[in-house]
Amino acid sequence: MNEGQHKGHERSVPQRLSFSDAAVHFANGAESPRTFLERCLDNIAAWEHDIGAFVHLDTEAARRAADRSTERWRSGSPLSPIDGMPLGIKDIIETVDFPTGQGSPLFTGTHTHRDAASVAALRSAGAIVLGKTVTTEFAATEPRGTRNPWDLTRTPGGSSSGSAAAVATGMLSAALGTQGIASIVRPSSFCGCIGFKPSLGGINRGGSYDTISQSCTGVLGASLSDTWQVAIEIATRAGGDPGFPGLAGPQQMPLPAKPKAIAIVETAGWSGATDEARAQFAKSIDSIEHRGVRIIRHHNHSAVRALEETIINARPLANTINAWEMRWPLNTYRDRDAAKVSLVMLERLGQAEAMTIDQYRAAIAERENVRRLYSQLREECDACLALAASGAAPVGLHSTGDPSFAIPFTLVGAPVISLPALHDEGLPLGLQVGGFRDQDEQTFAFAAWISANLV
Amino acid sequence: MNEGQHKGHERSVPQRLSFSDAAVHFANGAESPRTFLERCLDNIAAWEHDIGAFVHLDTEAARRAADRSTERWRSGSPLSPIDGMPLGIKDIIETVDFPTGQGSPLFTGTHTHRDAASVAALRSAGAIVLGKTVTTEFAATEPRGTRNPWDLTRTPGGSSSGSAAAVATGMLSAALGTQGIASIVRPSSFCGCIGFKPSLGGINRGGSYDTISQSCTGVLGASLSDTWQVAIEIATRAGGDPGFPGLAGPQQMPLPAKPKAIAIVETAGWSGATDEARAQFAKSIDSIEHRGVRIIRHHNHSAVRALEETIINARPLANTINAWEMRWPLNTYRDRDAAKVSLVMLERLGQAEAMTIDQYRAAIAERENVRRLYSQLREECDACLALAASGAAPVGLHSTGDPSFAIPFTLVGAPVISLPALHDEGLPLGLQVGGFRDQDEQTFAFAAWISANLV
Repeated sequence: MNEGQHKGHERSVPQRLSFSDAAVHFANGAESPRTFLERCLDNIAAWEHDIGAFVHLDTEAARRAADRSTERWRSGSPLSPIDGMPLGIKDIIETVDFPTGQGSPLFTGTHTHRDAASVAALRSAGAIVLGKTVTTEFAATEPRGTRNPWDLTRTPGGSSSGSAAAVATGMLSAALGTQGIASIVRPSSFCGCIGFKPSLGGINRGGSYDTISQSCTGVLGASLSDTWQVAIEIATRAGGDPGFPGLAGPQQMPLPAKPKAIAIVETAGWSGATDEARAQFAKSIDSIEHRGVRIIRHHNHSAVRALEETIINARPLANTINAWEMRWPLNTYRDRDAAKVSLVMLERLGQAEAMTIDQYRAAIAERENVRRLYSQLREECDACLALAASGAAPVGLHSTGDPSFAIPFTLVGAPVISLPALHDEGLPLGLQVGGFRDQDEQTFAFAAWISANLV
Repeated sequence: MNEGQHKGHERSVPQRLSFSDAAVHFANGAESPRTFLERCLDNIAAWEHDIGAFVHLDTEAARRAADRSTERWRSGSPLSPIDGMPLGIKDIIETVDFPTGQGSPLFTGTHTHRDAASVAALRSAGAIVLGKTVTTEFAATEPRGTRNPWDLTRTPGGSSSGSAAAVATGMLSAALGTQGIASIVRPSSFCGCIGFKPSLGGINRGGSYDTISQSCTGVLGASLSDTWQVAIEIATRAGGDPGFPGLAGPQQMPLPAKPKAIAIVETAGWSGATDEARAQFAKSIDSIEHRGVRIIRHHNHSAVRALEETIINARPLANTINAWEMRWPLNTYRDRDAAKVSLVMLERLGQAEAMTIDQYRAAIAERENVRRLYSQLREECDACLALAASGAAPVGLHSTGDPSFAIPFTLVGAPVISLPALHDEGLPLGLQVGGFRDQDEQTFAFAAWISANLV
């Protein structure tokens, strides 16, 4: 393993690069989408060799697109606030110009000749698709080699591994991810960037090979503003999943709003949280409480206690649902060439094939119960706060880490934002702000306030 | 146009060929899947040249599969009651052995290297995928040349055009279709076969390029028994759409059950119904009423009146929802090669692109209201009865006919069965039996009773 720097490009600690911050200078010409892109390309030169965030990358096409965007900004007619933003697309989502490999040797080099709904929307907003970012196999478990930029011996998390590592190092301002378990929140926490999983169905998944019922397309971003802007530009143009109202809200990042009350959610993985993670979390809560936000938790509130008791089983429940829902297409992939499917996937398929449809029906009925219980919290508080992970990214590239802390919010279909606000072992750790279904806008507003009020 | 017979193969009127009826003789060796397949192949030789029901067909592979199935029946170990059943797959649904062309020159010859969830399930039940059947472009409007076997100058209906024509002529015992407007019920009515659109989400659509929110995969069959069996074999193995409980019921066709009360639904297209269609429908109602079923209708029941008033707008409402939901992928197809997209599709895309997401949200909220209203009928009756179309298939191949009569049941997500029970101009006309959400089993039982009690 080469932990040194590549080709003499300077790099220090990973640093995010917000497009929204730069774009305020585009109009007067002090900066431009092209100069911004070159900063991203410098960061790619400095980091990519060691990190491995990209599956495909087209810098020359990106430069041409950035020049066109620069012209639009100069003439005062950008297509949207993200015109010229360099973006990465998780390689589970179709793009017309790059193959969609799904992190599987079965699909390496597979061209599908169309953009996903989200990607088509982003292009029509003027964003630049710089490349495809590494996903674990089929956006599930098996890692595909991306390293954590804070420590190359550690996992970046998954399954949106490349998206998180690229955004955390300023190679991109934002990237698309998907989350059916913990696949946006966990890598955002481990790499140190914003991670946003919208409400169930919030962003159109057309053209994403991610079809499980509790999964969502979401955004990993350098700043809350970059993140919101990417999400809302997609939703405005492409809507949500068919049959869902889709992400709604203002055309610019919602203003920070102070929540009245916040529920502290200690998830099933709580007992595995490190001492430092607990201490950092406690300090965050103190900061917020100190500023007059009412804090409710299991000690003092029965609704929180009831929820925590229910989500003890969130992980096996989510795994059961997802495993059934992935029987297909995994069965066809095994038939095609079992040697190109990971052992962990084959094993999970075997377990799923031993399930009956009645077990699946019972599982989705149980999920409905958890959703009902969670939505009752809405009467008691504005948002929930939880750790995004048990601590810093674990050492090793063979696993993407413990997903427990992210699962409850995925299961209930709530919008959730991971803020890169905490630390453990000197490495990033996320703070999760969970909202209520179809209140993504409010969740952003609360997250912005919380972010600004942590000491 | 050649209206004569092909290569001297004899044919008279189209005749369905029920696999369930034949399978009772498989055990004693009087018939076999192979002899059954040969009867289908004879019908293909007699009809296919003039009808054009298939896009792809592999008779030799089917013969080998039929021989293997014959062995299983002989050794007393068929994989399921449909082991050896010759099936067609609408060409909007992926198959590993045939390309999936979606009725579009953009996708002619496109191999996706996997079976859809439904197809994988059917193969594991031993069914024989004989070929891909013609779909209109993207399972929407533009016909692709299939002719009505009862009169070659007439449309077979669409979008499941090939599936209906093939089943009606005994080229297959059943075929998969999809319905987001009228695409199973209408061709079943025009060609004269059973058409079954299950409850919303009833059959797993994984691997079908049919992603609109009110669409379903369903079955066109030679008999009620064939139809049920295909549907339940899929659902048992592959379930419904992710997040849905999926079609439930017994492993064999439900026994006929007499409904206590039936609601007569005169849909928005009622004024266009032919005199003969109205007379046939009235006669059917009389038969049922005569056998002691309570008939409720707008004259005597306010709930029926309320529903009929609401579904006056079913067609524009369904069109609005579907148009928005097809903006993607049509926008990417237009970008790729607009000359390969039909004018009607381009025009619809243009209209859809003029819509806002708020209009879409209002439309799905209105659909929710219609669904609520429809589900209230459940208190008043066991099933609904309606014409499947305004009359016989219209002359001409440029249009697939009026969809109005099928739309209300699609919109509300109800299971619906079209019975080939009526006639108009000496041609087939369907009688629709509509049930209530997730009561597909009961709907079959009532349809079987109704079918047996018409004079």
